[in-house]
Amino acid sequence: MDLERSPLARPFPALPAIDGVTLRVARARYKTWDRCDLTLIELAPGTAAAGVFTRSACASSEVEMGREHVPGHARALVVNAGNSNAFTGHRGREAVERIVAQVADSLACAPGEVFVSSTGVIGVPLPLDKARAGVAAALKADPCDWKVAAETIGTTDTFAKGAGASAMIGTARTELAGIVKGSGMIAPDMATMLGYIFTDAAVDPAFLQEMLLRANADTFSCITVDGDTSTSDTVLAFATGLAGNEALTSWDSPGADAFYAALQAVCRDLAHLVVRDGEGASKFIEIAVTGAQSDESARRIGLSIANSPLVKTAIAGEDANWGRVVMAVGKAGEPADRDRLSIGFGGTWAARDGQPLADYDEAPVAEHLRGQEVRIDVDLGLGDGRATVWTCDLTHGYIAINADYRS
Amino acid sequence: MDLERSPLARPFPALPAIDGVTLRVARARYKTWDRCDLTLIELAPGTAAAGVFTRSACASSEVEMGREHVPGHARALVVNAGNSNAFTGHRGREAVERIVAQVADSLACAPGEVFVSSTGVIGVPLPLDKARAGVAAALKADPCDWKVAAETIGTTDTFAKGAGASAMIGTARTELAGIVKGSGMIAPDMATMLGYIFTDAAVDPAFLQEMLLRANADTFSCITVDGDTSTSDTVLAFATGLAGNEALTSWDSPGADAFYAALQAVCRDLAHLVVRDGEGASKFIEIAVTGAQSDESARRIGLSIANSPLVKTAIAGEDANWGRVVMAVGKAGEPADRDRLSIGFGGTWAARDGQPLADYDEAPVAEHLRGQEVRIDVDLGLGDGRATVWTCDLTHGYIAINADYRS
Repeated sequence: MDLERSPLARPFPALPAIDGVTLRVARARYKTWDRCDLTLIELAPGTAAAGVFTRSACASSEVEMGREHVPGHARALVVNAGNSNAFTGHRGREAVERIVAQVADSLACAPGEVFVSSTGVIGVPLPLDKARAGVAAALKADPCDWKVAAETIGTTDTFAKGAGASAMIGTARTELAGIVKGSGMIAPDMATMLGYIFTDAAVDPAFLQEMLLRANADTFSCITVDGDTSTSDTVLAFATGLAGNEALTSWDSPGADAFYAALQAVCRDLAHLVVRDGEGASKFIEIAVTGAQSDESARRIGLSIANSPLVKTAIAGEDANWGRVVMAVGKAGEPADRDRLSIGFGGTWAARDGQPLADYDEAPVAEHLRGQEVRIDVDLGLGDGRATVWTCDLTHGYIAINADYRS
Repeated sequence: MDLERSPLARPFPALPAIDGVTLRVARARYKTWDRCDLTLIELAPGTAAAGVFTRSACASSEVEMGREHVPGHARALVVNAGNSNAFTGHRGREAVERIVAQVADSLACAPGEVFVSSTGVIGVPLPLDKARAGVAAALKADPCDWKVAAETIGTTDTFAKGAGASAMIGTARTELAGIVKGSGMIAPDMATMLGYIFTDAAVDPAFLQEMLLRANADTFSCITVDGDTSTSDTVLAFATGLAGNEALTSWDSPGADAFYAALQAVCRDLAHLVVRDGEGASKFIEIAVTGAQSDESARRIGLSIANSPLVKTAIAGEDANWGRVVMAVGKAGEPADRDRLSIGFGGTWAARDGQPLADYDEAPVAEHLRGQEVRIDVDLGLGDGRATVWTCDLTHGYIAINADYRS
């Protein structure tokens, strides 16, 4: 089916070229479509690699193999669109190994320096002949820009998603550029869907991994579209080291904080873009939880709210139904005291300390809910724990897409 | 809004009168509607009471007070429809205490022998004057039958739900009758929504509690409509003791097994009826999980599948999308081995041992999915753990009901 562009879409930003990163795309024709569906990104020798992956017990071979090689070094990334190669047994594993061997052979690098991701239909082995022809075509193709690469990794995405930032490390200006795909089967507790961040900064692989884990925790791990965790979710970060900075090796390295802030900003922007392309989304929802017993408890409560179909449909209906928020707090399995709980929308409290406000004025809340950007505030009144999570509303569009879409 | 009767509805069954149980209803007018909305059930002196309640951290005062008095004895049950009285602070608690006092005074019993439940909108204190007038009217009303009581406890329900059974204890025939309400905000991990089971059997309160806990575990705790746990969920069992049997006090009591089987059957029937009235439901889905590491692990995996919006929409679309079932198994957080996993629909395996079946014939599966009753089989291939859970599909009807319904 042809999906309409999300009403929450953002234009693709101007992203800098990253020294040491070459983007190419090709047609592998994994499905009967007339579009590029294989992305091959070549990385300069010595590029540091870090990654976070789905925690699904049924992860794809791509994910299993990626886990084995981070932190480490990378020379190439291959992304297949249209076929997830998940749940395909030894044939799926073999397909990935063959792609890795083909690329490693061509670039004269170790197999462990080639990363592969695939998303799309589950349970159909990746057709090896198409993959090999696609890789061969990509190796010979002219380089493309970020927008084309972002479009090529997408499947049910309705718009291309990218984000960039820069950071000074000493006197060296370093650039970061990231792309991401995903709109359904999006849930936290992993590195959501496929996201790739590239930088020319010099960063030790182990420290890059540490920074990526930390940045992931309050960005990709704080978004949800439908609470359904994919078998293929992956976020990878690559640092080519060509910016000329003194390599970052720990939080004590000069410039580490500035670089981390830029990395985190790119992760957050990419995570938000995935929510903005949430299947059927008509509103972008930010849920800020404060006063929880811990940050992790706040995150869980936030996600319980963000994953509640009753809360999500209420927002779709522009209904300030804070009773459903109370319900979602109550079911989260986290410490909460009904009589200390406060809930607000768009900066207006509807209930404080376990009771509806006597002078609650619903007019500004109703106005707020008519907009595309909705904010829900929840204060537990228990401690200092806080977290912000992001989701979208649940609409007829989600049902239409998922009761019809297949293969 | 006027809700259409669920296509999965069942006719109300013929239920026996239970000796010692008198049903009455009245108009408290909690909402601007022309229907009875207060149910008062009088119980013979000495009636044993057991109960299971929501685990929500934001439970209503009704639930808090009910918890304090089971196992125990009961003389009356009051059920308010249209107002949940949840999240209403001390005013909500006071309202329940006043209702309890009024009924206890009238029946000359202890306050702890009066149970109250309320469901409906959250966050509006139960109007005390309406409650008092309603209770007074109910105390004077003529007795009614089970169907009228089942209709009166309902809120967004589209049909009245009841189930019965009988069991021989020694030479005494004992009868059980139960009613239940609920269609949205239905999730496991508690005693789902409001359910009441009555019997004339003589059962020790502590043993009744033990049997109810056990029966709840694989009936009400194995259903889900939307994964959203209510703040008011309650299942109560009352045994008037007028059947003349020797009182059941433990599993060793003669007839205990027969009685338990009857109790469990009533709980299961009532639980299924709630799923059949799931908001927007068009299909009743049974998910049988085998080969898990434990029964509890099997239940969690089953509920992960049952709560997955992608699985539920696939079934709505009559799509044998077993890849989404793989996804839901993978995200459950329970032991699973991708390469031992098998998935089937309606008795036909689609995938065995982590791979699609080479000779998979989709025709009988497609035929099965066009029906109203869908069965999903999942075998983990790891151990002996098993569980069966029940849910419904996710349709445009759910969105329509919940993006519009309020107060």
